[in-house]
Amino acid sequence: MEGAKLTRRGLLVGIGAVGGAGAMYAAMGALGLAPSEQDKEFAAPRQGDFSLRGKGAAKVVILGAGVAGLIAAYELGKAGYDCTLLEAGSRAGGRNLTLRGGDRLTELNGPAQDVKFGEGVYFNAGPGRIAPWMVTLDYCRELGIPIETFINNNAAAYVHTNGQTVRARTARADMYGYVAELLAKATNLGALDRTITKADQETLLDFLRRFGDLGPKLEYEGSDRRGFTKFPAIGGGTPVEAPGTLHQILAAGTGRSIIGDFGYEQATPMFQPVGGMDAIVVKLKEAVGEDRIKTGAKVTKITTLADGVEIAHTGGVVKADYCIAALPPHILAKIPHNLGAQITTALATPAPVAAGKIGLEYGRRWWELEDRVYGGVTETDLDITHIWYPSHGYHSERGLLVGYYNTEHEAELYGSLSPEDRRNRALTQGKKIHGEKYRQNVLASASIAWHRQEHIQGGWVRWPSFDSSFTLLQRPAGRVYFAGDWLTHLIAWQAGAMESARGAVTQLHQRVLQSP
Amino acid sequence: MEGAKLTRRGLLVGIGAVGGAGAMYAAMGALGLAPSEQDKEFAAPRQGDFSLRGKGAAKVVILGAGVAGLIAAYELGKAGYDCTLLEAGSRAGGRNLTLRGGDRLTELNGPAQDVKFGEGVYFNAGPGRIAPWMVTLDYCRELGIPIETFINNNAAAYVHTNGQTVRARTARADMYGYVAELLAKATNLGALDRTITKADQETLLDFLRRFGDLGPKLEYEGSDRRGFTKFPAIGGGTPVEAPGTLHQILAAGTGRSIIGDFGYEQATPMFQPVGGMDAIVVKLKEAVGEDRIKTGAKVTKITTLADGVEIAHTGGVVKADYCIAALPPHILAKIPHNLGAQITTALATPAPVAAGKIGLEYGRRWWELEDRVYGGVTETDLDITHIWYPSHGYHSERGLLVGYYNTEHEAELYGSLSPEDRRNRALTQGKKIHGEKYRQNVLASASIAWHRQEHIQGGWVRWPSFDSSFTLLQRPAGRVYFAGDWLTHLIAWQAGAMESARGAVTQLHQRVLQSP
Repeated sequence: MEGAKLTRRGLLVGIGAVGGAGAMYAAMGALGLAPSEQDKEFAAPRQGDFSLRGKGAAKVVILGAGVAGLIAAYELGKAGYDCTLLEAGSRAGGRNLTLRGGDRLTELNGPAQDVKFGEGVYFNAGPGRIAPWMVTLDYCRELGIPIETFINNNAAAYVHTNGQTVRARTARADMYGYVAELLAKATNLGALDRTITKADQETLLDFLRRFGDLGPKLEYEGSDRRGFTKFPAIGGGTPVEAPGTLHQILAAGTGRSIIGDFGYEQATPMFQPVGGMDAIVVKLKEAVGEDRIKTGAKVTKITTLADGVEIAHTGGVVKADYCIAALPPHILAKIPHNLGAQITTALATPAPVAAGKIGLEYGRRWWELEDRVYGGVTETDLDITHIWYPSHGYHSERGLLVGYYNTEHEAELYGSLSPEDRRNRALTQGKKIHGEKYRQNVLASASIAWHRQEHIQGGWVRWPSFDSSFTLLQRPAGRVYFAGDWLTHLIAWQAGAMESARGAVTQLHQRVLQSP
Repeated sequence: MEGAKLTRRGLLVGIGAVGGAGAMYAAMGALGLAPSEQDKEFAAPRQGDFSLRGKGAAKVVILGAGVAGLIAAYELGKAGYDCTLLEAGSRAGGRNLTLRGGDRLTELNGPAQDVKFGEGVYFNAGPGRIAPWMVTLDYCRELGIPIETFINNNAAAYVHTNGQTVRARTARADMYGYVAELLAKATNLGALDRTITKADQETLLDFLRRFGDLGPKLEYEGSDRRGFTKFPAIGGGTPVEAPGTLHQILAAGTGRSIIGDFGYEQATPMFQPVGGMDAIVVKLKEAVGEDRIKTGAKVTKITTLADGVEIAHTGGVVKADYCIAALPPHILAKIPHNLGAQITTALATPAPVAAGKIGLEYGRRWWELEDRVYGGVTETDLDITHIWYPSHGYHSERGLLVGYYNTEHEAELYGSLSPEDRRNRALTQGKKIHGEKYRQNVLASASIAWHRQEHIQGGWVRWPSFDSSFTLLQRPAGRVYFAGDWLTHLIAWQAGAMESARGAVTQLHQRVLQSP
C-alpha cells in the first residue's frame, strides 16, 4: 500500500535513503553481486541455468503468500524450483486485498464485517495505484493483466483546510498567482540584482507572468484557471468568487495540498489493474499453482541447518533446502528461530505504521453528476485525510468512494471504532466537503484497519534509519533469506515487495548455481 | 478539435471574452431568453411541449452534419421535429473524424491517402480529449458511450526546447525549485517587509520549502522529484544528472511547457470515448436516423421567406419551416443568400485557423517499454509542437502516436507537403527527442490538414473580437439560425458545437411554441 500523500515524504526523508543504499551495495558487493546484476537488470532464473552444471533446482519454503512471497515463488518456479508457500491467513495476497460483495473481513479484537457491495463494485483495501516506472506494471504486462489510468490528481477535486472547501484548481491558481506576483515584485524592486543578470530577470518575469497568469502590471488579479460556477459556453461563463487577499490565501493553508503529485512516487499519471488490484494476486496464484500455497499455516519456528531449513507451523513441519521469509518484520520478530541475536534485534527495529481505509458504496455517482469530479483525490486536514473518487466505471449507476485513507494517529483512532462508527464518522467528515448528499444513498461500506489484521498488524513499517539492521536482513541468515517491501526503498508499495523478492531470488539462485 | 496548448490562451485572450458575452446576453434578453433558460439549464424540446397548444412540430432543414448539426437534429428530434440534414461531404461528423484501416482521406489540391492502420488501431484526427465539465460528457452518458481517462499531462513525458530534451518532471522540479529559492531569498532579504507581515512570511516560507523541495538553507539543491535514471528499489536509486544553474534552467526555456494543464480547458483529468472519438458521431447518427442525412448535398443557395425557408443544393431543393445553418462561417460566407448584407459581413469576420495532425502507427510500444511513457504529451519548440502518446491499449503490441499537432504557420507548412514528406519531416523531428527508434518500425501513417479539407477549410476560426458580428449571428436571420463552436466561447471544442446547437434549438423551439 502506498503512503498517505501528506506524510510520504517525511517517511522517506526520515530514513536517510542515500547512506543506507551505499551501505547495502557494499554488502551486496561482498556477496559478488554488483548492483547492476542485483536489481538493474533482473534475470529470472531459467531451467536452462542448470543444464551445464549437472545439478537440479532446490526445494524452497516461502513464509507468507503476500506479494513478495508470490513473486519469489513465481520467479523461482520459472527455473523449476520446488516451492511451498506457508500462509497464516485464509487467503494469499497479503495487503493486496480487494473486497467485493460476499467477502467477510475479520480483524483482531473487533467484529467481522460481511461485505455487501453490489455486483461489479470493488474496494481496493490495500494498494490502489501504480506509478508507471514501477516493476508492478511489468508484472501486469507479463501476466496479461489489463491496466487503466488511475487519476491521482484532479483539478476539479477539492481541498478542505481550516474549515473551508475550494476546488484544487482554485487553490492552485491562487497560490501560484501570489507566488508569481511576489517574486515579480521583488525582482522589479531590485532584490535579485545581485543574484541574476537583468537578462535572466526578464526571462524569469516572462515565466512568472505565465505561471501565475498575472495581469499587465504583473499583479495577480484572479484567473480563469480558478474555475467557474458556470463554465464558458455560449456565454463567457460565470467565474467562481474572486480570490481572497494574499493573507487570506496563506491563512487558508491549502499549500500542502496542491503539491501532492510533485513526488516521483505519486506523479501523474498512475495506473490500476482493470477490475481490482487483486488481479495481480489471482494471476500469480495461477502461475505459481494454488496447490503450492498452504493457507492457515502459521509459522511457529524457523531453524536453519547445515544442509537445509526446517520450518514448523501450525499444521506440521516443512523441510527444504532454503527458506525465503516474506513476512512483515514485526511478525517475524515474534517467531522463535536459531538465526542469532543480531537477526532478532534487526527484525525488531522497524516499527509498524497504522493505516486504514473505508470503502463507501453509493447508489448514485453524485460526484460525477453534480460535482463533475471524475476520479482523483480530495485532500483534507480532517482525520479522514483523503477522499478518493473512482477512476473507472464512469457514468455507471453505482460507485465506491474511499471515504478515508489515513495513517498513524488517525488510523488508530478510526481503527479503535466499530465498523458502524467508522462509517458514521467518515460520513460526518465528508459531509463538511460535499454536503448532506454525502450521507445519503450509501448502500454499503467496509473498512479496514491494517494494524488490526491478524497476520499483518500494520500498513507498512518505518525504519529509524536505513542502518546496519536494514542491510543485515538483505543478506541471508544461514539458509534463510528475507523479502518484503520493508527491505527496500519502496516501503508501502507492492513494487517494493516485488523488487525485494527478485533480489532474494537472485541471491538464492546464484548460491545454488555456485554451490559445490 | 481543441487548440494547441501553447497558443490556446492567446486565442481566448485575443477575443475579449467578457464584453462579448454581456452583449450576447443583452441580445438574448431581447428575445425573451434569460441566460439561465438559454444555456444554464437546457431543456430539450419534448413532444409534450406541443400537447396543450394544438400545434405540431415544424420541419427543419439543417445545413451540415457535423457535431452542431447532429446535436440540433438529435434534440429537435426528441419533440418530433421533422429534420433533414444536408451534408456536402460523404460522411457525417465534420471535424469529429476517427481514421482506421480501410478509410480513404481526400484533401483539396493534394493526393488521397489510403489509411492502412492495423486492426483495432485508430487515429482521432480531429478532437481527441474532453474536459470533465464539458457537455460532451453528458452526451456520452446519455448516448451510452463508454469513456476512459485521457492523459493530458505526464511527468514522464518530455519537454524539448532549444535542442535539449528533459523529462517534464525534471523541468518542473527545476523551475519550481529555483522560483521557490529566489522568493525565499528575497523574503529573507526583507524585500516583502512592506507587502506582507512577518507571520505571513513564515507561512510563505513554509510553502516555498515544500513547493520547491528546498534544502535546510532554503536553497534548491536538486530534488528526487526530478526523477532517476534508475528508480529506487532495493537500493536508493540513481538520480538523473544534477540540475543546471538558474541561468541554464532559464536559458533552456522549458517554462512555457510545464504550464500546459493549468487552464480550465486542459486541466487534468481529461477523457475520451473508448474506441475512438467518432463513437459520438455513430451514436448521434443512430439516434437521428441515417435516412435524415443527405450526404453529397452541397448547399448552393439559402433563401428565407415569410413562411419558410428554401435551400438549394447540388441534389435539389429542400423547403422547410426553419433552417439551422451549422457550417463553418467561412464556408457559409460563400453561399448566396437573401439574409442581408450585415449577415454577409458578419460571416466573413472570423478567420479560419490552419491545424494539422499526423498519426504514426508503430509495431511496438517502445514509449511504454523503454521510456515508461504511458499516455500524455511531449511539448516541443519544434514545428511538430506536440507528440501525443496513446492513453489506451496499454501493453498491447501496436500503438499509434500523434506525431504532430500544430496550428497556423506550422500547420500550413506541413499541409503544403505530400503525405510522405509530412511523415518524413515528423519522424526527423521526433527523432530529436526519442532517437533513432522513432524512425523504425513505423507500420503506417495518416495525416490531416484541416484547412485543406474540402468542406471545412480550417481547424477552427478566430474572431478579431467577440463583437456585434458574433452576437448578430447568435440571433436568427429571418427563419435561418446559425450554430457551431464558432458562435461560442468554446471555439475549437466539440462542446462548443453542442452548446451552440442547444442554444439554436432552444430559440427555435420557443419561437415555434409562441408562434400564432
